[in-house]
Amino acid sequence: MPRHPRVAPSVAAVKGSVYTALAHRLASYEGEVYPLHIGDTWMEPATGSRMQDLTVEDHPGMHRYAPVVGLPSLIDAIVDRTRARTGVATERGNVLVAAGATGGLGTVGGAIVAPGDEVLILAPFWPLIAGIVRTFHGTPVPVPFIGTVDSAESAVEAVEAARTERTIALYLNTPNNPTGRAIPPEWMAALVDWARAHDLWLISDEVYEDYQYRGQHTYLRALAPERTFSAYSFSKGYGMSGNRCGYVVGPADAMPGLAKVATHTFYSTPTASQIAALRVLSDAGDAWVANAHERYAALGRMAAARLGVEEPDGSTFLFLDVAKHLDEHGLGGFLERCVERGLFIAPGSSFGPYPTHVRVCFTSAEPDVVERGIDVLAGLIGR
Amino acid sequence: MPRHPRVAPSVAAVKGSVYTALAHRLASYEGEVYPLHIGDTWMEPATGSRMQDLTVEDHPGMHRYAPVVGLPSLIDAIVDRTRARTGVATERGNVLVAAGATGGLGTVGGAIVAPGDEVLILAPFWPLIAGIVRTFHGTPVPVPFIGTVDSAESAVEAVEAARTERTIALYLNTPNNPTGRAIPPEWMAALVDWARAHDLWLISDEVYEDYQYRGQHTYLRALAPERTFSAYSFSKGYGMSGNRCGYVVGPADAMPGLAKVATHTFYSTPTASQIAALRVLSDAGDAWVANAHERYAALGRMAAARLGVEEPDGSTFLFLDVAKHLDEHGLGGFLERCVERGLFIAPGSSFGPYPTHVRVCFTSAEPDVVERGIDVLAGLIGR
Repeated sequence: MPRHPRVAPSVAAVKGSVYTALAHRLASYEGEVYPLHIGDTWMEPATGSRMQDLTVEDHPGMHRYAPVVGLPSLIDAIVDRTRARTGVATERGNVLVAAGATGGLGTVGGAIVAPGDEVLILAPFWPLIAGIVRTFHGTPVPVPFIGTVDSAESAVEAVEAARTERTIALYLNTPNNPTGRAIPPEWMAALVDWARAHDLWLISDEVYEDYQYRGQHTYLRALAPERTFSAYSFSKGYGMSGNRCGYVVGPADAMPGLAKVATHTFYSTPTASQIAALRVLSDAGDAWVANAHERYAALGRMAAARLGVEEPDGSTFLFLDVAKHLDEHGLGGFLERCVERGLFIAPGSSFGPYPTHVRVCFTSAEPDVVERGIDVLAGLIGR
Repeated sequence: MPRHPRVAPSVAAVKGSVYTALAHRLASYEGEVYPLHIGDTWMEPATGSRMQDLTVEDHPGMHRYAPVVGLPSLIDAIVDRTRARTGVATERGNVLVAAGATGGLGTVGGAIVAPGDEVLILAPFWPLIAGIVRTFHGTPVPVPFIGTVDSAESAVEAVEAARTERTIALYLNTPNNPTGRAIPPEWMAALVDWARAHDLWLISDEVYEDYQYRGQHTYLRALAPERTFSAYSFSKGYGMSGNRCGYVVGPADAMPGLAKVATHTFYSTPTASQIAALRVLSDAGDAWVANAHERYAALGRMAAARLGVEEPDGSTFLFLDVAKHLDEHGLGGFLERCVERGLFIAPGSSFGPYPTHVRVCFTSAEPDVVERGIDVLAGLIGR
């Protein structure tokens, strides 16, 4: 029993911020800085959807609480969008607006994880999903998958080998952070059949749905609407990460559980952020995304070519194995050499058992800054 | 083990939104509506601190992620304010900016509650604290206190009677939601001595610190900085509930645990909301609070006089026992009679074992609307 001065074991087991140490170095570096360690965008949100565009004259009470599940007008727009994009029957009761996709995935974790439950996580993975499972006293179980599995059959073999009596859910993320890969639709169909056979939940992190550059994004909920929670993000989609607004679409009978967790972790999603989100679910928002998609894709191709790796299928990241370029100081020494040149990138260990990989974001600074940062990294790997 | 379609037992045990049923009725009521069931304010935030006042020209990147712990400039302002108000040594490392005081108290729950741990909650209590404890798989233990206890000795007797081997913390809230009472300083000192003797954490919900109308607010952290988490709110303080920005001040060695929970439940507090918060920690904000304090106090006196109950010490609520006015349909029937007249108030059962009480907020609508709503309630209790 944690009592003063001890904290809960769950919290002690969660890794601290991946970037804290780097952020400290970043603040004190005096040359040009290439902050490619975070997942963000240099672009400001679409005109008309910025905070300065939202007035109390147009939106009286916009600084007051919104309903826990979200503003009705935003929920309706999300319902329309979800139906149009996925073809799945969707009603208001399938939607929870949340404090970003992170907040939304947190509500999923809180709603379905009991102490000791295990959640399989396709790796490499978005770092926070492991911490979300731990925060609610579950056990995250990484399943090496992308770059390891090579067919629908081996996909199922990989998850089945990790499944135990305590397994309750499978988490996957496509297009993928950190690898930039998209999981093929036929693999996803095989995983769905397997999850259904074992009555598992599916947690589908689709925050890069609009940023797949090769092939089409697969909406997992279309394959298993009865058991799938899909998370989406205005942060990633529309350059509004600081607004903390995203949403989850899932089974109607489970959504009140998610709303309860929301109530007790962030209460409601910021009202102004929801109004801004509603404004980008529009032609103006579509135009912003189309432009960002084109620019992100070009940056991804540039970065991949310069670093000599395969082009990303989607997302805003590349994930490189730099094993051949490590000396006796290991990856820490490599990251140190990057920092000495103003380049900040993320260590592979944040994303699963990848001690010799690094993740690079190719959209987190102005394109010319990204390009110079990629040049620094290319130099360090002898290209 | 919860698997599809089951949710975690913790979530099943959490009460749904107190107001969902009422909100439904509220939307369809055709006469004048008196929404005195929620805790909010009719006042718009101070000019200069509204979203429309925050521009990307002044704040480039203001739609991007803020650091998990908060913007450094806001943290510094909170440190200054905390030192000035409490006299307690306070550094950046004692502060976490959070998604409202609710989000902040959620991070406290996530950081200190292990499955099965018990948290004592002085009742009547703010409804969400019980759900926060359950969300992290702990057990909330209500301790009837306000209106029950009448001395420092009986205060300690009440909590000691509820303490078990699983008790890890005591939660208290003064000025109190729902009762409007302030806990006397000497009772708090006695509770602190008791908590120290048993190595318990103290969770001090002080969101109405600026709205105490009789006596001075007691800053609990001044009595036990080593074990106290104090939660504050820009929502309540400055009329910005929809911004979702508050903060927790606590022991430096425990705060990284809170930051981990924040990371995995809402990630960071909305960046624009933090800029707005910084703007009200100023003369303009002080003037807004002074005005709100005066108006809230007057409304509280008016409402108490009209309803024939004691004036509130603070907060924005009155808590009435309406047992004498219930018929065979109980409190449900009473609330029904209120709704038929356009009046929405909250049932006592939301706040602990108070099946014949109701809570009224006297600031959640324009003063003339509040006054007419209070008249409706007065009529129903024969005044």
